[in-house]
Amino acid sequence: MSTKVSVAAQPHTTIGNATFIEGGLGAVKGIRCSGVYAGFRRNPERKDLALVVVDCPAVASAVFTKNTFCAAPVSVSRKHLACMSMADVNNPGAGKGVRAIILNSGNANAATGDPGYKTAIQTAELVAQHLNCLPHQVLVASTGVIGVPLSLAPFEKGVPLAMAVLGLNDGTAFDSGLHAAQAIMTTDTYAKYTAVCFATVWDDGTTTTYNIGGMVKGSGMISPDMATLLGVFATDAQLTQEAADKALKEVIDKTLNKVTIDSDTSTNDSIFFVSTGAAAGKTITPGSPQYEDFTAAFRVLSEDLTRQIAHDGEGATKLVTVNVTGALNDADADKAGRAVANSPLVKTAIAGHDANWGRIAMAIGKSGATFASEEVTISMMDILVCKQGLPVPFDEAEALKRFDEYPEIVIDIELGTGPGKAKLWTCDFTHGYISINGDYRS
Amino acid sequence: MSTKVSVAAQPHTTIGNATFIEGGLGAVKGIRCSGVYAGFRRNPERKDLALVVVDCPAVASAVFTKNTFCAAPVSVSRKHLACMSMADVNNPGAGKGVRAIILNSGNANAATGDPGYKTAIQTAELVAQHLNCLPHQVLVASTGVIGVPLSLAPFEKGVPLAMAVLGLNDGTAFDSGLHAAQAIMTTDTYAKYTAVCFATVWDDGTTTTYNIGGMVKGSGMISPDMATLLGVFATDAQLTQEAADKALKEVIDKTLNKVTIDSDTSTNDSIFFVSTGAAAGKTITPGSPQYEDFTAAFRVLSEDLTRQIAHDGEGATKLVTVNVTGALNDADADKAGRAVANSPLVKTAIAGHDANWGRIAMAIGKSGATFASEEVTISMMDILVCKQGLPVPFDEAEALKRFDEYPEIVIDIELGTGPGKAKLWTCDFTHGYISINGDYRS
Repeated sequence: MSTKVSVAAQPHTTIGNATFIEGGLGAVKGIRCSGVYAGFRRNPERKDLALVVVDCPAVASAVFTKNTFCAAPVSVSRKHLACMSMADVNNPGAGKGVRAIILNSGNANAATGDPGYKTAIQTAELVAQHLNCLPHQVLVASTGVIGVPLSLAPFEKGVPLAMAVLGLNDGTAFDSGLHAAQAIMTTDTYAKYTAVCFATVWDDGTTTTYNIGGMVKGSGMISPDMATLLGVFATDAQLTQEAADKALKEVIDKTLNKVTIDSDTSTNDSIFFVSTGAAAGKTITPGSPQYEDFTAAFRVLSEDLTRQIAHDGEGATKLVTVNVTGALNDADADKAGRAVANSPLVKTAIAGHDANWGRIAMAIGKSGATFASEEVTISMMDILVCKQGLPVPFDEAEALKRFDEYPEIVIDIELGTGPGKAKLWTCDFTHGYISINGDYRS
Repeated sequence: MSTKVSVAAQPHTTIGNATFIEGGLGAVKGIRCSGVYAGFRRNPERKDLALVVVDCPAVASAVFTKNTFCAAPVSVSRKHLACMSMADVNNPGAGKGVRAIILNSGNANAATGDPGYKTAIQTAELVAQHLNCLPHQVLVASTGVIGVPLSLAPFEKGVPLAMAVLGLNDGTAFDSGLHAAQAIMTTDTYAKYTAVCFATVWDDGTTTTYNIGGMVKGSGMISPDMATLLGVFATDAQLTQEAADKALKEVIDKTLNKVTIDSDTSTNDSIFFVSTGAAAGKTITPGSPQYEDFTAAFRVLSEDLTRQIAHDGEGATKLVTVNVTGALNDADADKAGRAVANSPLVKTAIAGHDANWGRIAMAIGKSGATFASEEVTISMMDILVCKQGLPVPFDEAEALKRFDEYPEIVIDIELGTGPGKAKLWTCDFTHGYISINGDYRS
């Protein structure tokens, strides 16, 4: 297998209105974060507790797993967000706004019953004591093995450690952004974090530059249906609650909800979004030009993390991007693209560097999307392989060369039916996936 | 990896009203079959053309793939069945009833456009010339690589060879049943064929014994949604068209439609069922006691072949049986069981001999089935691992021992919601699957 070539955008890269910068969450003013070893794992070389502290109570939004077997921290964070939303904004003691997010890896606190729920509640209480806030202002998330009891002990040890090494809150704490991202890794082979800046012009002609930072963890058990993994996003822009909720949903639907590694959906998927307002400027409301600027930049950031997740899918050697056009509508395009991205036969063919487009045809055929097979055109790595449903002779040696050299395998599918389109991300399916998942618990 | 232990029932085994006998399709009176090398494959050691000849025009029924990208032979066989059904039963020259089924492996004749359709039509014409019947009395099926042109040449060479070595039609041509089953194999590691006999009592007190034979091929690209693979079933009982259609649908829904290897659905899935009536006895009509006897025995036969397919899933080392009980209804039970059977994380855990029931909980949680997690009970290999949604401490050494020794891993899931139940079959997910599918075309 070839060595992975990073697909993450480098600092100073500009895509649309967004320019990549260093630091992940550490690049966001008003946020302090850290990552430490607290003892959830046996290996003290691996950080396993991430703490994100918000200096001043801030607008928070979240999306969670749809899995019926949802984990205790998901239930607790849902409840805490509800409490925050109901708190009286005019009463400083009522606890309006988020103050911290605490995330551990190594134990998912899922299928752990009442004791697990109690641990999640107590974790929030513990952090709240350190920050002198109400427990419901603390959000919690866990990732790791399911069905193993989780005690408070590692949190009791780790939270003071994490508090002690929090980075600065001025948007320059690049290391702390990395450490937090490292602490939420499970089978990820590298930390996934990035940040972008963008400028927006206000009605009075003034321009403000904002940062958005994010960190996520993959890399198996990922098939989004709303939220699909552990992630924290933050910006130093000030959004209204409505704008934050809307922006998160819009961006996730186009990015993290379009990645699928193995069609499995975690019990713990949680994505949090915090708007600190710590940079200068006014409040961003839905539908405004500033909102459009914000979501455009947020989408660039989230797409980069999405690509990193797909690229680092368990055992993956290639990022696979599936572009569907010409579908009846966007939902149908998603259906067709998801069937391709989820197909083990397509993904093993890519692992084997085999431009076996017949499997792509099979996958869209079973998807339930509306199309006529004689209208379908398929390209792989910019090589036309199927036109109007029939094979096109192509240069197999050239295809093999591109398989060897390209870190990203792009599949373009034109259904010839309508205006619908979708872009999805996945990875190839290799022996590595089997090794990782056949021996994960031990 | 451990060596596979066969899960096929041995001759003389009795299950319900059915007793296993030798011979596959060769055990059915009125059927003659053969399997030869015709040149669809490069390797002359591997048979690649199966011919099933029906002595007298017989009742035929079929189920086909739901894949939009359906292959040419599927379109042709659908059309031929329609012609048969419209033919005037009182006019011997009109071509009522099936006379042959011809199946090749090595090339799926899918995504081959008009030339592929023409080849499928010509194949039927070729066989019809040999049998002196109408082309629409011949059904065709292909399996193998998609998108590669298929010429008539191998059929022109192979059909006379296959005609020359047809077995006897008296129900004793056991070798010919094997040869036909061998000729439709693709990545199957063994031929899948079996036969049963059963007795039924008529209203006048007389008893008749009938045989039912079948052959199928797996072993990847299998996720049923109606028909899901290549298969031929035949009986020497006489069923009405209505009884044949109903019996096939009922039995397939409970057996072959409950096996899933990789959630992929072929472009070519076809299952044919022929009722020759060559044994003594009267005609079986739907709803009669004889119909119930027939479908009970047919289900035993089809379940055995289903288990063989799952057991021989690409790269599989274990047959995995998922029993769901206590669901809201049967459809919900199927949904939950299918999510487990399709989950790469569950299947890699089994490959790794890891009783990681948390992944089973995750899978039923994402399935969309209705249940409360605190009502769920899960056992693996008769070891209780989860009760009311919480972990049950169990003997890991004993679990490992059973993983090593059992050819079949049974997962029992009680949802605690209602009377719904379902049984599904799959296999573990190993390095072998990746090897087979990463290097299939070359």
